[in-house]
Amino acid sequence: MPAALDELIDALRVLPGVGPKSAQRMAYHLLQRDRQGAGRLGRALEGALAHIRHCNRCNTFTEAEVCDRCLNPARDPQQLCVVEMPADLAMMEQTHAYRGMYYVLMGRVSPLDGIGARELRLDRLLARATDGTVQEVILATNFTNEGEATAHYVGEMLRARGLKVSRIARGLPVGGELEHTDIGTIAQALVERRAL
Amino acid sequence: MPAALDELIDALRVLPGVGPKSAQRMAYHLLQRDRQGAGRLGRALEGALAHIRHCNRCNTFTEAEVCDRCLNPARDPQQLCVVEMPADLAMMEQTHAYRGMYYVLMGRVSPLDGIGARELRLDRLLARATDGTVQEVILATNFTNEGEATAHYVGEMLRARGLKVSRIARGLPVGGELEHTDIGTIAQALVERRAL
Repeated sequence: MPAALDELIDALRVLPGVGPKSAQRMAYHLLQRDRQGAGRLGRALEGALAHIRHCNRCNTFTEAEVCDRCLNPARDPQQLCVVEMPADLAMMEQTHAYRGMYYVLMGRVSPLDGIGARELRLDRLLARATDGTVQEVILATNFTNEGEATAHYVGEMLRARGLKVSRIARGLPVGGELEHTDIGTIAQALVERRAL
Repeated sequence: MPAALDELIDALRVLPGVGPKSAQRMAYHLLQRDRQGAGRLGRALEGALAHIRHCNRCNTFTEAEVCDRCLNPARDPQQLCVVEMPADLAMMEQTHAYRGMYYVLMGRVSPLDGIGARELRLDRLLARATDGTVQEVILATNFTNEGEATAHYVGEMLRARGLKVSRIARGLPVGGELEHTDIGTIAQALVERRAL
């Protein structure tokens, strides 16, 4: 097999959930049926690596040093909502029930995957939440085991600093994830958040 | 969502079997946890597009105008084995039961996907098989419905030109694919090929 094809099949395995057989299928498909798509994907990877970084304030993906949402003066700087991933932030925004700021963890506490406070860089969340302006931190991590553990850990950490911390209500089904929940239920859960 | 991230998620959907949710998951994973892998994949795509072409004789993927196998004088130029994909050719080679030449269709007749004789460029196979040296064409397409239809169509086309055509024996299980068969069975099927 030619070296450049071998390397493409190997390189496709960096994608989560892609094993040797599907990497081979993908490589053949791209080279045989969609060279244009392959070129587009190559350029998109290059473009994303060159331009996508983490917002210095909320930690989500952005092309600027600080993202537009964090710079928006119409948002309430006294509320800080903590979510796991950018997709969760997008769901929160779609409810139109929240006008405060966000912090995106880019993950969740997961001992089995070796992801703890250090890997999640929770020191950065702590610095953000103790800026002197934030009055309340709303924990909107998922209601999975890992999301609950994350909320517990983060909640303890922030309450120890004297911050008011709340958790969105368990309006979501147990084991459910924000990304797969209807926005009405998410809005309800936001209204019914309880103090920790 | 930043434009470069949007574009990466869209671009990942050129991969077969990747929908919007898994494209998003892949993009987050690459940007958050494996930027090195993303860079490698981008370069591999670029390298494959720049260097991988089809062999002018056997149609498989290669970096040269004619691949090493087609240029090998130790191989028997009077036998031409037709397979669907490069992975099938690799399986045939592993049997060590065949010393002739190959032609790789890079697909199979599939009316539901709009792939017929024209899309498979069967005119190129015809030109290859009627070079005056090839004495026998061995059809080693899969024993799936589409592979059988392809063998039937190609067999009729080549017999009409007076070529001797054979089909590897149905030593493979019905519905089976070469890629997932043990090499002993494939070798047996090659020995027991029957004239069409």
